[in-house]
Amino acid sequence: MELKVLQRVMASNDAIANEYRTLLKKHHITMINFMSAPGSGKTSLLERTISEFKNRCRIAVVEGDIKGDLDAQRILRVGVPVYQINTEGACHLDAFMLSQVIPKIDLSSIDTLFIENVGNLVCPAEFYIGADYNVMLLSTPEGSDKPAKYPLMFSKADVLLVNKIDLIPYVNFDFTELTSSLQALKPELKIFKVSCKTGQGLSDWYQWLEDVLNLASRPS
Amino acid sequence: MELKVLQRVMASNDAIANEYRTLLKKHHITMINFMSAPGSGKTSLLERTISEFKNRCRIAVVEGDIKGDLDAQRILRVGVPVYQINTEGACHLDAFMLSQVIPKIDLSSIDTLFIENVGNLVCPAEFYIGADYNVMLLSTPEGSDKPAKYPLMFSKADVLLVNKIDLIPYVNFDFTELTSSLQALKPELKIFKVSCKTGQGLSDWYQWLEDVLNLASRPS
Repeated sequence: MELKVLQRVMASNDAIANEYRTLLKKHHITMINFMSAPGSGKTSLLERTISEFKNRCRIAVVEGDIKGDLDAQRILRVGVPVYQINTEGACHLDAFMLSQVIPKIDLSSIDTLFIENVGNLVCPAEFYIGADYNVMLLSTPEGSDKPAKYPLMFSKADVLLVNKIDLIPYVNFDFTELTSSLQALKPELKIFKVSCKTGQGLSDWYQWLEDVLNLASRPS
Repeated sequence: MELKVLQRVMASNDAIANEYRTLLKKHHITMINFMSAPGSGKTSLLERTISEFKNRCRIAVVEGDIKGDLDAQRILRVGVPVYQINTEGACHLDAFMLSQVIPKIDLSSIDTLFIENVGNLVCPAEFYIGADYNVMLLSTPEGSDKPAKYPLMFSKADVLLVNKIDLIPYVNFDFTELTSSLQALKPELKIFKVSCKTGQGLSDWYQWLEDVLNLASRPS
């Protein structure tokens, strides 16, 4: 009985996601969903990435937070439009929440939509929000044992950014443990080692993003 | 309609929790619930704390993980009994899960029950599990903005351990921001600054635990 209700909710979530996804496709908009535990560096990555790309593509950001707009304020300062979703307790974004925000965005003025999901290593991965790509962050202080303990998000990710590599001398993080568990879980997962603080390693991530956004083939 | 279902689930959760809580009280067992985001150091804190206290009180641990038993293996090596709950996807422990485990514990052989909740800064705080105290960890790399963004868990905590203070020279963590937002949210929250890696600051935490476990008044 409970399971049936859950299935109906999920089917309805996916139908709503596919509806606005069709609309985004019509406008040639690429949607990228950023997920991680709290404090892994999603907003820092967006600040860096937007600064790098904002003159080459037209970006808007949807910020998902339980409460407040601290991250949205940071993104605003980088100079792109931001739309805030406050989940008021909910531990993830879902398609219904996004369906309320997308009509407020001028879709003819953007080609790239970044979604910063709620900081949570579990629940956001359970809800399809119609994104073209899921980008996940794991920061080194969280530990290299995380794929074994929280497999779903890693399995849903297209790209994993291992962030805060500048802290590696000071934390216990074993890249061999990480890559061997990811090899078993999702061998095709792309992994970039980065520091959003120092900028180290970000060029590979930028190259990946440039490729999926087809920027090389666009008229500049 | 959905809200009603949720209220019924929560009422049922709380009733189950109070049932085994009565049983634990009958056995004079103190139950402490450890909550935090993934990788904040709950297991490291338990390793340190159990080593410190295992000759002064009789401890058992319940480990809550979505998958696997990596943390339980670590606790076993410290030499106390461990009971593993695998939530198989669920993002928190609830009273029903604990009610399945507590009958397996020899309650006459323990006086202290530590619960390591699923690593998640959101959902575990929503479910009452009958604990006498909620102990929360926030690690410095997660950032000092977390109470503003994830207020519920901080408001449910009796004690906050700010862990990984050994990393402060390398991360952006503003204690003034933290304490001023906690002052507004929960002025009576006890805060200890610790490093489970170096041991720094743990003596204050041990003193708090000694007090709530009434160890000073017990025959040694």
